[in-house]
Amino acid sequence: MPDALEDLNAYVDASRPEFERRLAELVAIPGVSADPAHAADIARTAEHAAALLRDAGLAARVVPTAGSPVVVGEYLAGPDRPTVTIYNHLDVQPADPAQWRTEPFRLTVDGERYAGRGSTDDKGPALTALQAAQYAVARALPVNIRFVWELEEEIGSPNFEAFVRAEGSRLRTDVVLVSDSIWIAADRPAIDYGLRGLVTFEVTIETGTNDTHSGLTGGAARNPLTELAGIISECVDPVSGRILVPGFADTVAPVTDEELDDFVASGFDVATFMAAHGLTSLRSADTREVLRRVMAEPTFEVHGLTGGYTGPGVKTVVPPRATAKLSARLVPHQDPQAVFALVRDFITARHPDARVELEAALAPYLGPRTGPYAEAASAAVEYAFGRRPAFVREGGSIGAVLTMDQHLRAPVILLGLSLPSHGYHAPNEHYDWTQAAGGIRMFVHYFHHLAARPARA
Amino acid sequence: MPDALEDLNAYVDASRPEFERRLAELVAIPGVSADPAHAADIARTAEHAAALLRDAGLAARVVPTAGSPVVVGEYLAGPDRPTVTIYNHLDVQPADPAQWRTEPFRLTVDGERYAGRGSTDDKGPALTALQAAQYAVARALPVNIRFVWELEEEIGSPNFEAFVRAEGSRLRTDVVLVSDSIWIAADRPAIDYGLRGLVTFEVTIETGTNDTHSGLTGGAARNPLTELAGIISECVDPVSGRILVPGFADTVAPVTDEELDDFVASGFDVATFMAAHGLTSLRSADTREVLRRVMAEPTFEVHGLTGGYTGPGVKTVVPPRATAKLSARLVPHQDPQAVFALVRDFITARHPDARVELEAALAPYLGPRTGPYAEAASAAVEYAFGRRPAFVREGGSIGAVLTMDQHLRAPVILLGLSLPSHGYHAPNEHYDWTQAAGGIRMFVHYFHHLAARPARA
Repeated sequence: MPDALEDLNAYVDASRPEFERRLAELVAIPGVSADPAHAADIARTAEHAAALLRDAGLAARVVPTAGSPVVVGEYLAGPDRPTVTIYNHLDVQPADPAQWRTEPFRLTVDGERYAGRGSTDDKGPALTALQAAQYAVARALPVNIRFVWELEEEIGSPNFEAFVRAEGSRLRTDVVLVSDSIWIAADRPAIDYGLRGLVTFEVTIETGTNDTHSGLTGGAARNPLTELAGIISECVDPVSGRILVPGFADTVAPVTDEELDDFVASGFDVATFMAAHGLTSLRSADTREVLRRVMAEPTFEVHGLTGGYTGPGVKTVVPPRATAKLSARLVPHQDPQAVFALVRDFITARHPDARVELEAALAPYLGPRTGPYAEAASAAVEYAFGRRPAFVREGGSIGAVLTMDQHLRAPVILLGLSLPSHGYHAPNEHYDWTQAAGGIRMFVHYFHHLAARPARA
Repeated sequence: MPDALEDLNAYVDASRPEFERRLAELVAIPGVSADPAHAADIARTAEHAAALLRDAGLAARVVPTAGSPVVVGEYLAGPDRPTVTIYNHLDVQPADPAQWRTEPFRLTVDGERYAGRGSTDDKGPALTALQAAQYAVARALPVNIRFVWELEEEIGSPNFEAFVRAEGSRLRTDVVLVSDSIWIAADRPAIDYGLRGLVTFEVTIETGTNDTHSGLTGGAARNPLTELAGIISECVDPVSGRILVPGFADTVAPVTDEELDDFVASGFDVATFMAAHGLTSLRSADTREVLRRVMAEPTFEVHGLTGGYTGPGVKTVVPPRATAKLSARLVPHQDPQAVFALVRDFITARHPDARVELEAALAPYLGPRTGPYAEAASAAVEYAFGRRPAFVREGGSIGAVLTMDQHLRAPVILLGLSLPSHGYHAPNEHYDWTQAAGGIRMFVHYFHHLAARPARA
């Protein structure tokens, strides 16, 4: 531990009232990005966030986009010094007060527990990093620290890529820390070093113009629903989930036994997983296999089928068309466009009049789990929380991570602080002081590590 | 042709104004059985129908049921004479005036064309038979003629079986004529001698309690929609429609080449069939094969799938449960309960936690296409319309036919008069004088044929 960290514990303890005040101020602004009625609250969130950055000793600017602004905060120690960029978002999910035990947009402090919408997703982690930056700024650590606070994450970051492109070299950085992820278990820190990609698409079969009576037409009429069922069964084994499209997994980077060991070491537990998601049965009950499937394997899912009769009972119509809503989660190094083309061609070769239409595509992400930036993250986590983190992958997709990976050309490390119990997107969302205090120590450690690096050539 | 028919043409010509007046009176009462707001109109229809029967010289009674009444009209020539029962229904489909060129519940006479809701389905054919019965009554033909006019056919005849059971031996008859079917082509009379049966059921797969995020659970979570797609594909070849459940077709009575020849002779035309039903492609374009499939083959259809996301775009949820709404059309001599058990056992043997639940079951019907009653019907049609009818089968199911077949133990012959262009259940439904005039001659011929039979032993 660097000597410079000697007074850190005292700083952390002393900063608690300030942290709680800042979190209360931010939670009190209901910046619900999904609801246009809250547009003014998004703007207030941005202005107040810039004020908080300035209050902590950083320069701040509110950068407009075609949608909501992005807030950028900077402490620049010098152009020859390493730069770390910390991404958070300050927009929040909607909150239905009827489902909350406390008022969602007023921070309720109960001992260590901070309840309020956005407290853990993602205002608390953002302010945790800010408290750490304030420490670094006050001590003039020789490291550049930049905050990028987005206000449209909860609606899919529609303008974030345009923001990054427009900022160009002003966002040049050596590493990106994304503090918007969740440990898998409360007692074991976790760092996500990978994200699955996603391709969503629809398949439509159309054989007529209107519902027909299956007594009058049934047998001769093509049934779009049975044909879609057949297409699905040709693409995926329905029970095991094994993908049957030839070539689909050809580019998949196999997960190593060592990676799987790390997944298992995360504290993941099948029973907890099932309870958390309300699942009463799984394709496999084996911990290692479940983790392999959700973190490191592609999927082929049906999310819905439209067409036909869906009211009570059975109405004997043959519908004129039906659409399956489908997606594939992708793992490194699958290319979403290439995978879509493969699936489309596989389907249309067998069913020439099937319409296969792409909806959205996100690439998978694989960040470093070894090397200097990952090791620094691991050391910072161990310093702060007393345990080495498990390196795991996230089964979902985060668009902003891909955007920064692609445009900033720096390693992106998911250094989140939330716990599974904190209730991301749920009623009674909360954060807690233990995670905040550990988080301040974690970020400060990371800044010191970067500060100790030699100057650029 | 019996001599007694010498004055029939003159009678038919003379009866036209009376027929049109009676049809106008019945059409004017909007007896929509599906709409409880029209309950009083159903009651008025019954009372007016009884009055029409009496006006034609028959005895009439309005028989209450747990739902709408059934109107019974009788001319009894003597207990030793043959008895014919003629079934029609006088309830009608709803009518949206905005879709009609004329007022739906006012008969609009345009030359030979009689437009109005119920004109062809089934008030016009009922009154056609009544005009014929009036001729027979006036001439004291030695044949018993009974009318059974139902008022719940358009809602699935929920109380018809109870009515038949309650009436018991009072409905004893030698033959039943059902005048509620449609010729396949305008220029060729058709007699339906078979109906497909129907078994409707639902299959449900349940694997959890709520939607989950396919990023977090996908791969490990069972997907009820892919599993249902798999079940469907195991039961039926989705493109050809061939049923794959072993034993499903073991009891099917094969259709003969002679029957198929008759189907083809009906004037059925694939292009017309496609246009009528708005179908842009079929499983087969061959006339004989299409007819075999819709008239004489069983089906396995999916009518809808519920579960999952059906809004715009793709939402990446894995639903906790999904239900397929299914049916099989059945042909002689398949037993609906036995077929259901076979399908259920086939599915649950492979998918033990699939729930397979019966909704409704109707047996197939195969009436005579040869023998004295069918030959008499054929002769009557030829006498009336100048062409021998094609004997075909109906792809749908009519509950009342099965009920009468089972309980009255007499051959049921579908001696309908409507044309494909008349618009059953459609806006601008109509009937026409040519079909009515031919129909009167047809029924009178049939009565004469029965009257010429020897008295009972």
